[in-house]
Order: sequence, then C-alpha cells, then structure tokens
Amino acid sequence: MHMVLRHGTIVTATDIYQADIGIHNGLVALIGRDLHGDSILDADGRYVFPGAIDPHTHLELDSMDTVSADDFYTGTVAAACGGTTTIIDYAEQSQGGTLRDALQAWRDKAENKAVVDYGFHVSITDATEEVLTEMQEMVTQGVPSFKCYLAYPEKLTDAELLRVLLRAREIGAVVNVHCENGSLVDFMTDRLLQEGKTEPRWHPRSRPASFETEATQRAVTLAEIAEAPLYVVHLTCAEALKAAKRARASGRPILVETCPQYLLLDVERYDEPDFGGAKYVMSPPLRERWNQQVLWNGLVVGDIDVIGTDHCPFNLVGQKDIGRDDFSKIPNGMPGVETRVPLLYHEGVNKGRISLNRFVELVATNPARIFGLLPQKGTIAVGSDADLVVWDPDKEMTLSVENLHMNVDYSPYEDVTVRGYPEIVLSRGKVIVRDNHFQGQAGSGRFLRRKPFVA
Amino acid sequence: MHMVLRHGTIVTATDIYQADIGIHNGLVALIGRDLHGDSILDADGRYVFPGAIDPHTHLELDSMDTVSADDFYTGTVAAACGGTTTIIDYAEQSQGGTLRDALQAWRDKAENKAVVDYGFHVSITDATEEVLTEMQEMVTQGVPSFKCYLAYPEKLTDAELLRVLLRAREIGAVVNVHCENGSLVDFMTDRLLQEGKTEPRWHPRSRPASFETEATQRAVTLAEIAEAPLYVVHLTCAEALKAAKRARASGRPILVETCPQYLLLDVERYDEPDFGGAKYVMSPPLRERWNQQVLWNGLVVGDIDVIGTDHCPFNLVGQKDIGRDDFSKIPNGMPGVETRVPLLYHEGVNKGRISLNRFVELVATNPARIFGLLPQKGTIAVGSDADLVVWDPDKEMTLSVENLHMNVDYSPYEDVTVRGYPEIVLSRGKVIVRDNHFQGQAGSGRFLRRKPFVA
Amino acid sequence: MHMVLRHGTIVTATDIYQADIGIHNGLVALIGRDLHGDSILDADGRYVFPGAIDPHTHLELDSMDTVSADDFYTGTVAAACGGTTTIIDYAEQSQGGTLRDALQAWRDKAENKAVVDYGFHVSITDATEEVLTEMQEMVTQGVPSFKCYLAYPEKLTDAELLRVLLRAREIGAVVNVHCENGSLVDFMTDRLLQEGKTEPRWHPRSRPASFETEATQRAVTLAEIAEAPLYVVHLTCAEALKAAKRARASGRPILVETCPQYLLLDVERYDEPDFGGAKYVMSPPLRERWNQQVLWNGLVVGDIDVIGTDHCPFNLVGQKDIGRDDFSKIPNGMPGVETRVPLLYHEGVNKGRISLNRFVELVATNPARIFGLLPQKGTIAVGSDADLVVWDPDKEMTLSVENLHMNVDYSPYEDVTVRGYPEIVLSRGKVIVRDNHFQGQAGSGRFLRRKPFVA
Amino acid sequence: MHMVLRHGTIVTATDIYQADIGIHNGLVALIGRDLHGDSILDADGRYVFPGAIDPHTHLELDSMDTVSADDFYTGTVAAACGGTTTIIDYAEQSQGGTLRDALQAWRDKAENKAVVDYGFHVSITDATEEVLTEMQEMVTQGVPSFKCYLAYPEKLTDAELLRVLLRAREIGAVVNVHCENGSLVDFMTDRLLQEGKTEPRWHPRSRPASFETEATQRAVTLAEIAEAPLYVVHLTCAEALKAAKRARASGRPILVETCPQYLLLDVERYDEPDFGGAKYVMSPPLRERWNQQVLWNGLVVGDIDVIGTDHCPFNLVGQKDIGRDDFSKIPNGMPGVETRVPLLYHEGVNKGRISLNRFVELVATNPARIFGLLPQKGTIAVGSDADLVVWDPDKEMTLSVENLHMNVDYSPYEDVTVRGYPEIVLSRGKVIVRDNHFQGQAGSGRFLRRKPFVA
Repeated sequence: MHMVLRHGTIVTATDIYQADIGIHNGLVALIGRDLHGDSILDADGRYVFPGAIDPHTHLELDSMDTVSADDFYTGTVAAACGGTTTIIDYAEQSQGGTLRDALQAWRDKAENKAVVDYGFHVSITDATEEVLTEMQEMVTQGVPSFKCYLAYPEKLTDAELLRVLLRAREIGAVVNVHCENGSLVDFMTDRLLQEGKTEPRWHPRSRPASFETEATQRAVTLAEIAEAPLYVVHLTCAEALKAAKRARASGRPILVETCPQYLLLDVERYDEPDFGGAKYVMSPPLRERWNQQVLWNGLVVGDIDVIGTDHCPFNLVGQKDIGRDDFSKIPNGMPGVETRVPLLYHEGVNKGRISLNRFVELVATNPARIFGLLPQKGTIAVGSDADLVVWDPDKEMTLSVENLHMNVDYSPYEDVTVRGYPEIVLSRGKVIVRDNHFQGQAGSGRFLRRKPFVA
Repeated sequence: MHMVLRHGTIVTATDIYQADIGIHNGLVALIGRDLHGDSILDADGRYVFPGAIDPHTHLELDSMDTVSADDFYTGTVAAACGGTTTIIDYAEQSQGGTLRDALQAWRDKAENKAVVDYGFHVSITDATEEVLTEMQEMVTQGVPSFKCYLAYPEKLTDAELLRVLLRAREIGAVVNVHCENGSLVDFMTDRLLQEGKTEPRWHPRSRPASFETEATQRAVTLAEIAEAPLYVVHLTCAEALKAAKRARASGRPILVETCPQYLLLDVERYDEPDFGGAKYVMSPPLRERWNQQVLWNGLVVGDIDVIGTDHCPFNLVGQKDIGRDDFSKIPNGMPGVETRVPLLYHEGVNKGRISLNRFVELVATNPARIFGLLPQKGTIAVGSDADLVVWDPDKEMTLSVENLHMNVDYSPYEDVTVRGYPEIVLSRGKVIVRDNHFQGQAGSGRFLRRKPFVA
Repeated sequence: MHMVLRHGTIVTATDIYQADIGIHNGLVALIGRDLHGDSILDADGRYVFPGAIDPHTHLELDSMDTVSADDFYTGTVAAACGGTTTIIDYAEQSQGGTLRDALQAWRDKAENKAVVDYGFHVSITDATEEVLTEMQEMVTQGVPSFKCYLAYPEKLTDAELLRVLLRAREIGAVVNVHCENGSLVDFMTDRLLQEGKTEPRWHPRSRPASFETEATQRAVTLAEIAEAPLYVVHLTCAEALKAAKRARASGRPILVETCPQYLLLDVERYDEPDFGGAKYVMSPPLRERWNQQVLWNGLVVGDIDVIGTDHCPFNLVGQKDIGRDDFSKIPNGMPGVETRVPLLYHEGVNKGRISLNRFVELVATNPARIFGLLPQKGTIAVGSDADLVVWDPDKEMTLSVENLHMNVDYSPYEDVTVRGYPEIVLSRGKVIVRDNHFQGQAGSGRFLRRKPFVA
Repeated sequence: MHMVLRHGTIVTATDIYQADIGIHNGLVALIGRDLHGDSILDADGRYVFPGAIDPHTHLELDSMDTVSADDFYTGTVAAACGGTTTIIDYAEQSQGGTLRDALQAWRDKAENKAVVDYGFHVSITDATEEVLTEMQEMVTQGVPSFKCYLAYPEKLTDAELLRVLLRAREIGAVVNVHCENGSLVDFMTDRLLQEGKTEPRWHPRSRPASFETEATQRAVTLAEIAEAPLYVVHLTCAEALKAAKRARASGRPILVETCPQYLLLDVERYDEPDFGGAKYVMSPPLRERWNQQVLWNGLVVGDIDVIGTDHCPFNLVGQKDIGRDDFSKIPNGMPGVETRVPLLYHEGVNKGRISLNRFVELVATNPARIFGLLPQKGTIAVGSDADLVVWDPDKEMTLSVENLHMNVDYSPYEDVTVRGYPEIVLSRGKVIVRDNHFQGQAGSGRFLRRKPFVA
C-alpha cells in the first residue's frame, strides 16, 4: 500500500463502520483493520466520506456580457476545500454550433486548470436534427446527460424537448431540465420594468414559484409521454416538488435536485439594503420560507435525490452591479461549490434532519449513480478512486469570504458558523487539501468519461 | 484469514464491485484483491450478497387450535437455503401475561433449533400500564420493536395503540401494526357464514381492501398524532399504500413492508378447485391483480421499504382442512421464508423492475437498518458478521415442494421456475448451505440483541 | 289571494328576479307582477328569501346533568327572528330505549311550544337488531335521517355504524355522523386532567383536528363500503374536509355540514380571561385560524353543502360554570340558531365570498333537499309553504345579547355588527316576526314528515 | 295572458313542482294554478324545462378548406328540435383582423337565418396590444367571453394567454380555453404520417390524453397566476379533470365543460371500417372508455359544470373524405347540437346518474349563469324569456339521420334509441317545434347581449 488511512469511521450511503483504508495507485485497494502502508494518515475520531460530487456548476461561464468569476482552477480548488472531489459542469452549445464543439471548448477550459476530476453535461440550445444525431456521439464520449432550458433565449419548445427526451431514452442518457416558464418570465419582467420596478427585490416577482411549477409539471409530463428519465435541476418550491412527486408515483425515473440556498435562504434576502439583494439574484430565485420545510421533508422521504449547487458566482463589484438600475441585467448566479457539503452536514446531520448515510447519498452517491460514475466515484469500495474526505465533526468554520476559496467578493453565508468540516481531502490518493489549505496542483484533475444512464 | 471468498461481485445496497472477502472469526475482516486465507471459496462470475433478513416470520406459532408447521429448525433451514441468514420472529404476549414471558417462551423455542441468527418482535395484546412499563425492559434486552393488531381478538383500541406509540417514541422503539379493521372483519365474516358462504373464496370477501385501507389510515394518523415511527406490516393494496404515502409526505417515519405473495399472486387463486383456495388463506388476503403494479411502483420509488414474508405455513392435510366447512376456521398463513429472495430477484432484477442494489436494500439492508441490526447484519463491510450468500445468477430452480425445505405439504409457487439462486450460504463465516443442501447444525443460530430505533 | 308580497327581489338557489308573491292558505299560490290580494306587504328594495332551515339544533337537551337553555319556544322564536323558519332537531335514543320513544319524547317537547315547523333526526346510541328494524318505521313516520356518534359514551363501534349505514341505504335514509375519535378524546382528556390542565383552553387540546380527521376518514370509508349516503355534521377543519372530498371524488353522496363558528371564530377564543373560554366549549372545538379559509373555499367550490348551527346553548352562570375546575365537565355547546343566517349573509355575500344564490342554497335549499323537505320548504315556488323572509340588505344589527332572543346569558358575537337582517318573517303565510319582534304564538309550528333520502 | 302552459311539472335547477305558466309578450308573466289565457297548451304529465343553452357551437365555420355543414338556419332548427333554444357560437378573429370584424361577420351570418336566440364568444388568435384593448368593446357589446387556443396554428403563447387572462379579469370576462398542447400534436402528427400511419385511427394517437392534460394544467396554472376565471372547453379525460380540480380546490373559478360524445363514445370508434372512424375525428378525440365513469362522477359531484356540444358537422361524403389518405386533413368535428339534451336526459336521468335538477343545471342554468344570460335564459321565472320545452318523458326516439334535422349525412348515434324527448318547444313564447317538426321561421332568433362575468 502506498498509503493507509487509519482508524477512521467510514461512512457510505449504506454503511458506517470503523476500518482502515489502503490506497494504491490512486485507488482504494484494501479495507480492513491494522493495515500497513508507506505512509499513514490518522483518521481516528473522524469520519471518512467518499469525496462529494457537485453535479451542477458553471465555471468560467460567459453570461450576460460577463464571465462567472471562478474558472476551473479557482472553482475546483474551492470545491476541494469544501470536500467536493468531482464536479460536473455544464458545457453550453452555442446557437448554430455543435455539441462536439461545446464539449471541446469546455474541455479546453478545464484541462490545465482543474484540480479535481470533472465531467460535463452538454446543454442543447438548438435541437436540430443534426444535434439529435450528435447526442449519441456525446454519450460515446462519456457525456450521457444533456440539459434543456424552458426559460432564457435558449429555451426549447415542448416538441423540441420531447424529441430530446425520446432521443435520450434511445441512447441511455438523462435530460436535465431547467424548469421555469420563460415566456411568462419575459412577460413579467417587461411589465415590472415598465412599472419602474428595477431593484433586486423585483427579481423574484419576475419569476414566481408558479412559473417554476408550471414548467416542472410540463417537463415531467413530457418525460412521461416519452417514457424517458428526467432530472429536474435546482427545484426550489413545494408545488414544483408536488408535481415531480405525482409523476414519480407511476414509477417513472423523475429525479430531483435542489441546492442549499433553497433549503436555507429565503425571499426576504432580496430586501437587503444597498443593492445587497443582488447577491441572491439567480434563477430560480429564493422562495418564501415555508417552502424550506417541504424541501427538507422531501430530502428525508426520498422525493429529492441530489443536492447540487448551481455554482455560478459573480462579484458584487464589477459584475452584479451591471444591473444596478435593472434587475434583469444582474448576472444570475451565486457561489456555492465550497459550502454545499458543510452546510448540508451542519443543517442536516447536526440538526437531526437526515442520517449520516443519507447525507453521503445526497452529496456523493446519488450524483454518482445518476450520472454514471458509480463505483468509480461516490462511494468507498475496493477498486474505487481514492477520492476521500477526512471529516472532523467537531471542527467549526465561519463561512465568510476570508475563509473561503471561491473567487468572489462576497459570501451568502458570511456570518454562518458550521460545525463539521473537511480536515484532509484526497483526490485519487493524493492529499490536496489539509486544514483548509489547498496543496494540490493545477491541471491534476482528469476528464471523466461517464457511463450511460440506467434507471 | 480463516477463509477467503474470492473473485465475487460484491453487491450492497450502494455498491457493486469485484473484490475478495477475507473472513476471520466469523466476521468480514478484509476486503481487497488477491487475498490469501486458510481456505478459499471461489465466487467468480457470481454475486456476493449480504445474507438476507426476513423480518416477519411466525415459526412454531400456536394459532387456531393448531401450530404453524415450521419450527425454528425446519424454518431456519429453509430460510438459509433461500438465502436468508437472519429472521425476526414474532413473540406473542398471552392475554394477561407479560412481555418478558413472551420473549422467554420464544427464546426457548428457538434456542436449540435455529440454524441462523434470530431476533424477536414482541406483540402486545394487552396494553396495560404494566406492559407499557415493561416495554423499556424489552428494548434493553434487544427487542426494540413491538407489534399491535387492529384485527383479531388481540386487537387494541385506538387509545391503546396511541399509548403504545407514545411509549415507543420515548424508549426508541418502533411499532409494527397489522392493519385490518377487525370490527368490520368480524361483522362481514358472520354475515357471509350466515348466508352459507363457507368456501375459501369467501375469505377475501370477509376482509376486503377497504378494511385494510381504513385501518392503515387510522394507524398512520395515530402515528402522526404520537409523532412516533410506525411500521406497517404486510401491506397489500394500492389504497392502503396511498394512505401510508400521504403520511410520509409530512416527513414522518412511516415504514412499509409488503410480501412476495402480494406482488405476485392475486385473488383468483381462491377459486382453485378442491379446497385449493385454502392454500392462500392468510390475512390480509390476496387482492385484485391491478394492485400489483402499484406495489411494484412503490418498491421502485421508495414508498415501500421492506419485503418480508409473514411466513406461517400450515399443511393442507391435517391443518388447513380444519376449515373445510368454514373458511373462518382455516388456519391463516402461507409458507414463504425460503422463496422470498429468489422470487424478488427473478421478478424484480431479472425483469428489470429494480436494480441489484435496490434488491439488496429491500431484502437485507432496510430490515437491518429499521430493526437495529446494521452494520452487524444486512451489509458487507469490514466488521460485519460474515453472513454471505454466493448467488449464482444463472442457476434455475423450480419452486416445487420437492425442491424446498419448508415443512409443509404444498408450495404456492409449485410450477414457478426462477433464474438466480443461492449457491453457497455462510452464517457467521460458516458454510451452512451448498447447492441447496443444508450443512449446518441445529442450534447454531444466536439470539440477536438489536439496537434501539433511529429515524 | 289572502296576501301579496309586493315588489320584492325573489332569490332562490337558482334565480334572482323581481316579482310579487301571492299567498293563499299558507302557500305560495301565484308569482307574477302587479298582483292583488286582501293584504299587501311591501318588499320593494328588499330581498325575499325562502325561510331558512337549520338542520342541526339541540333544544331542551338533557346533557351533562343540565338542560340546554333554549326550549322549543325560546329556541324557535330566536330561529324565526334570525330568518329560520324550519329546524330539524336531534331526538336522542336513550340507552336501551326505542327510537319510537325518542321520537315521541321529542315531539312532546315541541308540540305546544314550537313557533316554526320542525322535523327530527333520531340519534341511534344502541344499534341492536331491534333498533335496525325500527329504523324503517322512523322513515315511514317522516324521519329519514339518523345520527351516529363516534365519540361520547354513545359512540358506536365501526361494525355498528356499518350496519346502520347498510340499513339506511335499504330504507332511503341518510346517516349523520359526529366525527371525532372518542377513544382518543377520552385518553387525551384523562391525560390533561391528570396533568392538572383543567381550564377551558385545554378543551381543544383534548380533541385536536387530527382526532376529527381520523374519525371523518373512517366514517367516509364505511360509507363507501356500505355504498350508503353519509352526512358529516359540523365539520371544522381542512384535513377532515380533504378526507370527505377524497370520498366524494368517486361519486359517493358524502355530504358535509359546517357551522358559522368554524368559519368565523378560532382557537384563541379559549384564552379569554375569567373562564370566558367556556363560552366556546363545544365539540368539535374551534380550530386554528388557517382552517377558515379552507372551509370558505369549500363553500365556494361545493365541497361543503350545508351551514347548520349545532345550536345547544348553556348559560355561563349556572351551567357552563359546572366545569370551572374541570373543562371536561363544562356543558358542550353554543348558541347559534338566531345568528346563522345574518352571519353567513354578512361574511359571505357582503364580503363577496359567495353569491346570493349560493347563500340561499347553503342555509335553505340544500338542507331541504338532503333532508326530504323540497319543495315544501327551502325554495320559493308555487305550491311551497309560504315560509318567507323579507330581508333588508341595509339593516344593521349588533349581535349582542340584548338584541337577540336566544335564552342564554352571552353572545359569542357580542360586538359584531352585521349588515343585512330580516325585516319580516312569514311562517306558512303568517307574519311571525317584524323588525326583530316576534308576533306569532307558541305551538303554531307543525311536525314535518320528511320524505326519504334521494341521492 | 297570451298563452298558458297548463298542468306541467316545472323543473328548474332547484325546483320541481306542478303549476301553470302564463306567457305574455314572449315572457314568463305568471306562475300559478288554474291560470287562464288566450290559448292553452296542455302539459299534463310532462315536464316543462327551461329551453336548453348550447354554449359551444361552430355553425358555418370555415375550416380546413371547407365549411361546417350546418349554417345558422339548419343548425338552429336542429337545436330547437332537440330542446335547445339558445346557442353561443364562436366568432373567430382572422389573423391580423379585429375582434369587431369577427363579431360583425358572425352576426351577419346569423341574422336572417337563426331561429333561436344566439350569442357569440370571440376567439382571439392574435393577441396584440390592440386586440387586448378591443376586448373591452366586445364586453360592452354583449360578448363577455373569449376563446384562446393552445393548439392549432391559432395557438397563443403562454405569455399571450396570460395577458388575455389578466385583461379578462379587469373587464369582467371569462376566457374559454381549448386545452391541447399544439406543439406536441404537430410533432406527433408529423411522426405518424412519416411512418405511413394515415388512417383515422391514428388521429387519437396524434393527440393523446396526456397532451390535453398538460395543456389543461398549464391553462389552470395561468388562470391561478392571473387570478382570472377560466372555462375549459370540451374536457375529455380523467387526468385533465384532476388538473382542473386541483385548481378549483383553492377557490378559483375554474369552470369545466364536457360534451356527450366524451361521456358516451370511446376510442374504439376510430376502428370502424370503411373510413368510418372519420365520423369521430374531432379534437380532442374520443378517449379510452374508463374515462367515462370519471367524467360522470365529475358531473355528479360538481367538478364539471356544463355540457356543451362542440357541434361542428362535416359530411362524410365530400368533406370528411378530404382526409381519406391523411387523417390530419379530415375536417375536425361532429354533429351534436340536436342530440345533447335527449342523450343527457336518457343516460343521466333515466339511468339514475343525475337528478332532474342537475340535468337542467348542466344543459341550461349553468351555461346561462357563466355566460351572463341569467335570468333571461336558463331558468323558468317571472320575467324570463318564455323559452320553454315541454318534455315528454315517455317519448322514444331513435337518433338516426332520418329523424334528425342537422344538415349532415351521418349520425354518430345512428342506432341509439332514447326515452324522453321534446314535444313542444317555445322560443320567446312562440311554438317553434311540435312533435319533432319545426314550425318557426328563419331569422326569428335575436342576438343576445350578455352580461359581464361574475364569479
């Protein structure tokens, strides 16, 4: 063994037990007790989790005349420091462009920068016959998941989405859908702006929960028609969850992702003074507080499968302020890739809402399973990549800008202190983070060829 | 290592991977590749599952003036041959008796006979103040689950069940409830008999799905009032599942068990000629076929947590025929402990309804988790008991009386051939079954002290 | 024509139109314009409603060692002053007694006192074989509705209620059910009292919404099993309504009554100082405020069919105070027969929640239809009894004790002022109320033989 | 009195009673007994219903390169013979045209032809700012209802429909929506045709129930967002009804229309040989039979408010056969205006599914109430138009082409015999039909200025 991780309490989606982990050639090679190796990492009294997977990031994304503030270096360093050792980023098809080009462009962005392993979803913004054909090639290249929008200029018509779903079913892919009714959002945005309602607090009014609910129920209905799997990204509210749930009841694979911000923050944030509401301008927006309990229940009973982040940070100064006089011009997005795992641990496990196993399932195992990475990622088993997090359940951390590594000038959780934080993070057997300091090197992350979707 | 199980494909509720398992002192001691040991069992090309757990058996049960046909020897031999290495049997409080006495009586029945490990639930048939107090002692002795009936003479009133639930919450126990409205069953039974309707086919009419649904919704409502966990045993029908599901939506731990017979057999069986319907006389009875799809969907989406058996066999000749002239006198119950795992594998995994992981979860991991046996049982992890099943996915078996080990003169699946069957079964590291032959010895099973319930 | 009611705006459940009404021999004889008659009542600018029907009163009821404060004289005078010209009171079977005796006893109470027409429901508290047989006789005598309790010592078992329902279906009767789970209420009451919780504010805690919901869903399930009509009396809360609604979806005649107090008052009333909470001690109790909106919606969309009162007044001094040291000894009930119609008009029609037609339907036509009184009562049509209310939509009235005629020392709506009140009330063509003064005479009311129930 | 209708049993949505009706100047002038008049019509032993209202017809409609076979003469003669004395037809805005022009064009079509009174809805196919403004003028002119399509080339976007709904709320109008997802229908149609599936039986596959359900849930969601009333035209299936119902639960005025064909015919009709399936080609199409019971339940419990026809006949020879080689070219529509009332009476009242009052409510009173015609039409009250039907409950009629007056070469109910049929039909006091013979004259019908919508 090159390395032994000793005396930790190993936690997977199923198990909790104490054992040593032997690591060889970047893989988990042996699990037992009293193992020996070239080097020893002590994990006594700490948990050992599989490295978490963030299946929803937007690094270095061109959006609204600016670029999201984290590139594949800063973004993955931040991810790693927060316990996430795999990300799946969204490569966006340009209008008229090919999926191939999109994938290549994003691989290029990542290649010499990423410090953890990464995969890509490809967003289909132009569902031509050629693109439908090209989808097969993407699956072959390790991209068995596509994204479609029901909002934004990139939005597909219902028939286009149906075609993508039908195609996805044929080729073993899953379709991730951004569920907001863009036609209504545009109408409402125009109306608010015409009425002179330009501050950030009008952003959530321009895209209320009912618009998301409508789009969600439409998307799940299309998936039922196509008999295809569907993955609802960043679901935010009770009614949309109910729509997804109704569809699941018939046995369809309707998968649901939510994000920490929808579990923890609410619509009142948009009232923060001095343009502070801009920090939370993202789509869908934060909702009324009562939705949070419903989402937590969904996590507990299994109606929500995954916690992602939709990490897409923009600086308050120089980026968010583009929309100072018009909320619709504020770049949409929030930082999150670094804080997801600690927040869910603190609010979920410490507060008794979810078990340790369920925690691991939500941040690591389910993303791996759904997106074709199990057992390479998302679990701790012999043969898996040694992407491991030694988690100190007693370590406290305040999630302020100065403690975090994301390349953005604010934290949405500035004063929040969590208990439980990564102590050591390994990527394929190498220690890349220790005590919140990154020790790895740019470009060490590899592109992941993921396997086709299986229901 | 005393023994190494080599080259198998290990399947847990989370993982599927190829590795060797080193066994020492009856425990899983090491998982890796190319392991060495005193003896080698080859599992190449086969799956290695954690030994399954049947959380619902009635061995050697006095019932309706006779005794269920399997005792703790024959019943556990059959269990083992079918891949089940742990059972949890129901110890029944006698009217006026203590829980302590019930537990002791059942421990005595099992002690020199059982060939696999076993635990007990205790059924509360007399919910006095003393009994409520005694519940704590049961938890201390490793019995953190109780059963209450809403049918039969043993049925509790609503207030009694509420008291049991409130008490259970305090002491870390879960309450298993038999959900049929006994008051209505008695009325309907009398009515049918008065009308001269005495054949087995009237049995399902005496306890229709609506009676189960009513009792289920009452039980879940009581659990909601008590804020206590509830485990619905042998749920059979769509409407009752809907009732359970409504309660789960609020985040309550409402757990649901069904059995293979409700997934695979239907009410038309009661029309078998020559008193053949008596084979299926059990409570609740088999339902109309359309319910089966709903139950399968429930397994897929997670609304049903466990597959048990309610194993309680009676011979057609000498037992079932007590009720030849009166269906209400037919001893209630059916054999099942041996066929549960192969049936679910064949109908679930082979037919593409559920994944291998979900299969393991339903027959092993979830029963272990709910009933306080994880990680000792129900998974394959370092430190767990080496209760292992080497499963040959290609082995075919016809589930006829001559191939099975249950001590009963019929099989409800006489002509059914399944593909996938245990090749070798280990209990705490000892091979007790090989190629459908039992090789262990009576009394080798141990009483399991289970841990308190955690939501 | 003996009398002509001229120029009023006639309102029925369907129509609103201006016309004169000619009355002859106590009946509506002619509807047209410019009618002539012996005497003329001017109704210009006012509405003419059919006299309202209160299908749920308890006059002169022996209860908890006292007697409800209104007898058939004071109670019906109050009813008339409030626009109600028919009541249906509950005759209670005594334990071991016959239904016949109950009916006779109540007819005797009413005969020389009632000033408006009246019918009876008979409550079955002892569902013996003889009583089931006797039900037919009751229908023949004009009593096609029975009441069963699921709470109180009079409560029936599920099998008993099922038998009553099956019998009711055979003979053209409807069963009214008081839906609270008495077994749970008794348990909770004992528990609270043991904890020293004796003030009125503990009353609602002893019978929470969940107890009502459980009983409601049980009752509707039994009605579904029996394929019999069911009338849920005094439904109070959102969850119970949902249960009723689920059953209606399958086409069953599940009818729902609520009362003004559940639409307008809430659980905080029990906190009134100086034992003031006792004014609202009734069963089921007032609920949390949010339920009110759900009930109003139910009225609008048709999920609730009838507004009754459960009028059963007890004086604060000398009656309610029996329970000063023990809420469970406070006589259960509240005055309401006089205020129902004005409250529903003010809160429903004036506030734009329901239409005038729906208002008439809820307080008059639906009770008439369900309880076999149409077209004699509950509408304005040629041949109907001339039970008419000339309603002044502009008249304001404060619902204080001094303005009301109910024989009780408090008003639950002491400071409430409503707009819209009866100006003239006719019973079978005779003016019995004018400007809130009663002008009729004791004993003028007649016993109504109602017709069998039709779905 | 010019005329007296004597001894009939008058039935309204609320009442059933025997009385004479005096008619003067085309109005109901007097209701009483033993009335005298210039002429007498005897209705002894027969029912007198308010003339029925068909709120959904398409007479003389240009569609798919042909014109619907009934013009305003033949269509209204047929209506009258079937007991319908008012129709509301759809005037269609032409692309780029005004609503004003559409209304005028349809008024011109009707003026010298219609034999019963008529109103119009205006269909908005081009929701420009000008058109939104023009909506107010339509309301002023007596057209307080608009139609929007979610299918066909005329379909609106979601934002357009939302704008129409918001506008409708402001001006007291209701929006009727054709709920099918046109984007999906177009896709599916192309696909089927490309696969060579051209026969009529592919028509229902091109627009399955799920497409209607999706559009229905979208429309009701938009109505909830707009807080505007919505009228779902020709709803056909269980799932769409469920969607409407969910929205009604929150108290919204979501109104639902279905048609006799969806209650009585099913998808197997499309398999009729020799292009016979073309008779039933309409949109939405006929559904699987099990939906019918759900729709009947919806009529009973009040989830469906209106029975319309969507009358839009095309001859098999010369019209339907345009699409002999391509189902998508078959003109869409079916005759129905004449058979609606007898079919609903026979299948609803005779078969015990609905009461006489509910029957009248569904075919007359509710259309009148929703579309601003009460009390002029839809009821029998003093001051109402004397649009009356003397209904012989014993008259039998076979609904074959030779007995019917619709100008079309087939009847979808060719061999169906109903019991109960109009004997005499009066329009504003004139006998226009007697014993299935039309006696009125072209152009006697008047344009109805309807009142604004009130919830």
